[in-house]
Amino acid sequence: MVAIHHGPLLERCVIPQDPAYEARVRESFSRQRHMATLGATIVSIAPGEVHLAFPYASQFCQQNGFMHAGAIASVADSANGYAACTLAPPETDVLAVEFKINLLAPAQGEGFLACGRVLRPGRTLTVCQADVFSTGPGERILIATMLSTIIVRRRQ
Amino acid sequence: MVAIHHGPLLERCVIPQDPAYEARVRESFSRQRHMATLGATIVSIAPGEVHLAFPYASQFCQQNGFMHAGAIASVADSANGYAACTLAPPETDVLAVEFKINLLAPAQGEGFLACGRVLRPGRTLTVCQADVFSTGPGERILIATMLSTIIVRRRQ
Amino acid sequence: MVAIHHGPLLERCVIPQDPAYEARVRESFSRQRHMATLGATIVSIAPGEVHLAFPYASQFCQQNGFMHAGAIASVADSANGYAACTLAPPETDVLAVEFKINLLAPAQGEGFLACGRVLRPGRTLTVCQADVFSTGPGERILIATMLSTIIVRRRQ
Amino acid sequence: MVAIHHGPLLERCVIPQDPAYEARVRESFSRQRHMATLGATIVSIAPGEVHLAFPYASQFCQQNGFMHAGAIASVADSANGYAACTLAPPETDVLAVEFKINLLAPAQGEGFLACGRVLRPGRTLTVCQADVFSTGPGERILIATMLSTIIVRRRQ
Repeated sequence: MVAIHHGPLLERCVIPQDPAYEARVRESFSRQRHMATLGATIVSIAPGEVHLAFPYASQFCQQNGFMHAGAIASVADSANGYAACTLAPPETDVLAVEFKINLLAPAQGEGFLACGRVLRPGRTLTVCQADVFSTGPGERILIATMLSTIIVRRRQ
Repeated sequence: MVAIHHGPLLERCVIPQDPAYEARVRESFSRQRHMATLGATIVSIAPGEVHLAFPYASQFCQQNGFMHAGAIASVADSANGYAACTLAPPETDVLAVEFKINLLAPAQGEGFLACGRVLRPGRTLTVCQADVFSTGPGERILIATMLSTIIVRRRQ
Repeated sequence: MVAIHHGPLLERCVIPQDPAYEARVRESFSRQRHMATLGATIVSIAPGEVHLAFPYASQFCQQNGFMHAGAIASVADSANGYAACTLAPPETDVLAVEFKINLLAPAQGEGFLACGRVLRPGRTLTVCQADVFSTGPGERILIATMLSTIIVRRRQ
Repeated sequence: MVAIHHGPLLERCVIPQDPAYEARVRESFSRQRHMATLGATIVSIAPGEVHLAFPYASQFCQQNGFMHAGAIASVADSANGYAACTLAPPETDVLAVEFKINLLAPAQGEGFLACGRVLRPGRTLTVCQADVFSTGPGERILIATMLSTIIVRRRQ
């Protein structure tokens, strides 16, 4: 039996290139009007990891009263983008190239937490994964997971 | 040089199992409040293919004023889900299991068209692809493509 | 700062439905001739988690002498399928519906380890993730990660 | 009803930057030992589109005697990579960043055809899609489709 360490894969890499990474993330997030529309807020920003919270809201639901997969994907995508952003150099912007999301459980509950983290930082491309949990009085449930490829570009 | 037919792969399969498929799609779509929130409307419903239109709107944008990838993904996901729905039996509902989207060009323009079509219908799982185009006075541009796995379930 | 537990998500679910799950996995694996061709062997089988090892071999390489992404994907796909298999009922078989793989580093080294684990078990669909590491005298490097949707079917 | 043109999306872009693209593809393909191992051959090379054929072979099968998903993915990945290669500048190499494949039908038959085509060429990233068909005396069946992100790099 081989012991595999499933913990933080990034221990060696977590020194941000931009000491002002948190301010950069907050400033960019404040310009993402889609996040404000969804009621998403920043819970935490750490090197290689960003957590965003957002409430259940019926105007973003699908036909059965669960949050629409696209609303869940929206916040997961931003969590991954900003996780990548924490490790990017100053004067850069990040952009999703593609993502894939698996919907694991119905998106119901009082609210949700999208936890994006960097799997592999890169000069051009950064790969991130976001887990989305439903939150509330009871137990936290994993409702979705997203794997994203993000491009880091010099800000124009 | 082998000639490959890239056209409608579904010619043999387009006879819907539910003659009332269009009414079923319209009724379900009217309950998707997220689509109303995004301003999405049905452009066309045909066996195995559903087109949805939606306008550019700044409240769904990311930090640079382009529509957020999650907003684009939302309508593409619904277009694929309803494309699957047209070929599903009566008394069933469809649910996205997972999807993957590639963002191909910045989501700018007056509006957008998400064209979902069935690649392979199935009793349990249906695979669909949606192309999203920006529309406007000029040329139509492909801005995203999404591959989705959709589960067909007896309505509860 | 919200503390998120990134550890085993499956603690509650790890009681296999089939006590003979290990024998079932070994028997099926022995019939996967593609695994024998690639030289893959079973390192460990636990409820919800299967590790497979395979050597570097030039006949499975791409143009630059790294293992071909498809060879890496082959073993990752089997690791995920057998991880799903450990939690499936007796008399069932598993089949990949789809997978997505991110290639994170060049596939070089003496050998590789593909670690598949169940993220969410289900009656019909199980979602798994496989991390692939290069192994050797030095440090273990994460070279790829795969997210898979697997269908569990009654054996025919 | 909006008429959507599902045909060649690349009509405007098909002028290769490297007139010697075909020779470049053939030379690189000849170095992909994994393709030789699988018995894959080039059927056609055109700007933005490459077709590869490969036979059914039991040594690349899964537990039920169908070709392993990883073997199918291997050739689809190469078809997409070389499709991207036809539109890349001279002195560059292509590398898969990630791909997602949906398995649509059992991989059985005498042989298979993997048809890769560029959906969107780019300076850094090119997005391709490959359809894989089973071939034989009867009807051609779509057994898989793959969406790939490919990076174009200066050859080292």
